[in-house]
Amino acid sequence: MKHTKVKDLLNSTKPVDDVLIKGWVRTFRSNRFLAINDGSVIHNIQCVIDFENTSEETLKRLTTGAAVAIQGNLVESSGSGQQFEIQVTNLEILGDSDAEKYPMQPKKHTLEFLRENAHLRVRTNLFGAVMRVRSVLSFAVHHYFQDRGFAYVNTPIITGSDAEGAGEIFQVTSLPLNNIPKTEEGDVDYKQDFFGKETNLTVSGQLEAETFAMALGQVYTFGPTFRAENSNTSRHLAEFWMIEPEVAFNDLDANMDLAEDFIKYVIRYVLENCPEDLTFLNQRLKQEESQKKAADRSPMTLLEKLRFVLENNFKRVSYTEAIDILKNSKPNRNKKFNYIIEEWGADLQSEHERYLVEKHFKSPVILFDYPADIKAFYMRLNDDGKTVRAMDILFPGIGEIVGGSQREERLDVLQQKIKELDIDEKELWWYLDTRRYGSAPHSGFGLGFERLVQFVTGMSNIRDVIPFPRTPQNAEF
Amino acid sequence: MKHTKVKDLLNSTKPVDDVLIKGWVRTFRSNRFLAINDGSVIHNIQCVIDFENTSEETLKRLTTGAAVAIQGNLVESSGSGQQFEIQVTNLEILGDSDAEKYPMQPKKHTLEFLRENAHLRVRTNLFGAVMRVRSVLSFAVHHYFQDRGFAYVNTPIITGSDAEGAGEIFQVTSLPLNNIPKTEEGDVDYKQDFFGKETNLTVSGQLEAETFAMALGQVYTFGPTFRAENSNTSRHLAEFWMIEPEVAFNDLDANMDLAEDFIKYVIRYVLENCPEDLTFLNQRLKQEESQKKAADRSPMTLLEKLRFVLENNFKRVSYTEAIDILKNSKPNRNKKFNYIIEEWGADLQSEHERYLVEKHFKSPVILFDYPADIKAFYMRLNDDGKTVRAMDILFPGIGEIVGGSQREERLDVLQQKIKELDIDEKELWWYLDTRRYGSAPHSGFGLGFERLVQFVTGMSNIRDVIPFPRTPQNAEF
Repeated sequence: MKHTKVKDLLNSTKPVDDVLIKGWVRTFRSNRFLAINDGSVIHNIQCVIDFENTSEETLKRLTTGAAVAIQGNLVESSGSGQQFEIQVTNLEILGDSDAEKYPMQPKKHTLEFLRENAHLRVRTNLFGAVMRVRSVLSFAVHHYFQDRGFAYVNTPIITGSDAEGAGEIFQVTSLPLNNIPKTEEGDVDYKQDFFGKETNLTVSGQLEAETFAMALGQVYTFGPTFRAENSNTSRHLAEFWMIEPEVAFNDLDANMDLAEDFIKYVIRYVLENCPEDLTFLNQRLKQEESQKKAADRSPMTLLEKLRFVLENNFKRVSYTEAIDILKNSKPNRNKKFNYIIEEWGADLQSEHERYLVEKHFKSPVILFDYPADIKAFYMRLNDDGKTVRAMDILFPGIGEIVGGSQREERLDVLQQKIKELDIDEKELWWYLDTRRYGSAPHSGFGLGFERLVQFVTGMSNIRDVIPFPRTPQNAEF
Repeated sequence: MKHTKVKDLLNSTKPVDDVLIKGWVRTFRSNRFLAINDGSVIHNIQCVIDFENTSEETLKRLTTGAAVAIQGNLVESSGSGQQFEIQVTNLEILGDSDAEKYPMQPKKHTLEFLRENAHLRVRTNLFGAVMRVRSVLSFAVHHYFQDRGFAYVNTPIITGSDAEGAGEIFQVTSLPLNNIPKTEEGDVDYKQDFFGKETNLTVSGQLEAETFAMALGQVYTFGPTFRAENSNTSRHLAEFWMIEPEVAFNDLDANMDLAEDFIKYVIRYVLENCPEDLTFLNQRLKQEESQKKAADRSPMTLLEKLRFVLENNFKRVSYTEAIDILKNSKPNRNKKFNYIIEEWGADLQSEHERYLVEKHFKSPVILFDYPADIKAFYMRLNDDGKTVRAMDILFPGIGEIVGGSQREERLDVLQQKIKELDIDEKELWWYLDTRRYGSAPHSGFGLGFERLVQFVTGMSNIRDVIPFPRTPQNAEF
């Protein structure tokens, strides 16, 4: 007999005789009411046991976490809280769960404790909801791009170039670390390594994606990226998933349009497809906020925040305008910022971004046309000679969620920049080929997927929106 | 003015005045007929130039690979080969392509040469088609699982455990290779490494996916996996993408049903969604086959092979039956196999798998119930004490495309096995927790995505179905 998902039974419109479910005990009370969850939906189904005809031994084994198969009839429930329940006719315990030892007790655990049990935390309502939303959100990403004719490109994870210099990198090697072969000059002999050269984990698939955009027109990546940055914060992971669309013939304005449309689409998609999980997460955040001081509370609930993003245009503000706003802002004048904004050219810190988004504009903000000196080599130089066609999208509570730009398509300008930055041009021969042969304006951006999941689920620590977070001193599981 | 995709224009049902396209020159003949491709579809659009009113200099710059913006009227074509063409009213060259130097000349290149130009090969018809099919196939994967309520799980890429012992692994480190810190005992001091322990690139997300299946019920992974195996063959990559579904409460039969249904779904999906690219690939393979000796030719075209898989049940054959068939087979009796099958327990080589699939059954085959000794520790032991509930799916021309099993859900049996194999049980504390708390039968499989892309596109070398292949001595780009 095939078993039915709890989700389908809870969505039933009428009683059903003889159903079979399989799942795990969440709670068991009064020797009678068993709440079963099978992961298909956040809600449990109530199963009513005929305890007079059930052995004492079986009843004792119905502990939180135990796996069970339950046969019975789906009937309308007389109790409050559920429309249907199962009158149990047969019950089989598939796997016990020692009530004394089971780490996921039916009580509130700290997020820190749950992180240490990342293999079990997904059995809680909270992490079940977060991980289902994460999954649906990732499908929304693919849906958006595929529906619009973008090709998904799997750019390499192991790369031979760190030309972008995006930060500290992880090395990948098959050399024995306790006996590294050396050349006569005493350097590491990479010729003996698997790839015959120094290799590392990718920090971005953008450069490779650009080569595909210049053939297929519109492409996107969605894969893991890595930073060996020693930042133990609630905003950083050493391993995270990134989405990087790249579009031939798009200028920066079209790039902003794409990013805004994309973000709104995926948020709308989860609102439509994850109502139960988002309702739960909304409730949870409300409760968490209610424990804060009134001044620290968010003016909007989670669902209100998501709808607000859908219903409002992102404010588009040039870097130069933003600097003016910041220079004249109260926290700057009163020296409340850690980094006082004194002049054009300053790199914006997260405190400044938060001020712009949360205090000044009270809306997502797209900053564009940054000083060339604080941005990457591949961004298109404006005619003013000092700014580049870069854009960052800043979100309330999250900070930077998107970084993008129109790319420098002019070979000579790009080569000049590479020279100035002392990057080895030979390393980038293939990248420069896209400018040598049939170059054209093109643009793209990178969106950190976990930041998006944070925004949608309202989780404040990035370690709580990825199954098994990788952070300094932590690669358990 | 917004530009239109070539695909949309070619699908037009009527002439359209004043259209704008942007793309790259494929060919230019008689100073008049320009074939433009923009990557949206394999076909070019013919653009007819009024050469008498176009400057000599512009005409000279219309070389293969040049990027152009073309304005004109979409009209019915009087020539054969296309229904519509564009009568050009305005032409702008966005980026030149030096005809002498451009590596992608309009002629047939060897696959080897194209591999060395992986950043440009996607500009050819062949690789454009392969990469579009790959993209649609990956969307089909997500579609299949998401439509059925599976949650997508991003299992970690960097892991601290190599418990599975699936082969040679890549180490990940942030230690300086030219100056590895050592402990007092002279060992590598991993405490100083980024994660404070030895870490490597994942060879499979299965064990982590199992922990999620035991909470969410049905999950799947789809991400990069790695093997530092020094195999320079047309079937191996050091970096490849793997799909690993894992389902609570599924036994091996349900697992086989899922795998077969899944493979048929994704093949049907690309047949429906990539007609132009598959027609091209079908034609290409026909031509390639026609150059072979009659005896070596495939009896079916690519499209016939794909339809054959859809229309026929995969043959389900136990390992024991397969050994009997192989023992009595002609090549075994005539000692034509490199590895002669002498007795039950032998590990099947690719020559045996091919014999079963291509000669004996002439159909995809699912082999199941393998000897325990040649399979992984986590597979469920049968009551005979010597076989495990493993399955491999074998495909014509490809060999093993799926490997899966019902997992050993009994804690004591699993612990015994781990002990026998001398695996450090402490490394697997979290994995064993799934058997300690609410264990239940469950099953899953792994499917090498590139092998699937090979089967669907008819490409014989696995390096030609991934954007930037990673193989021994090769991590260019």
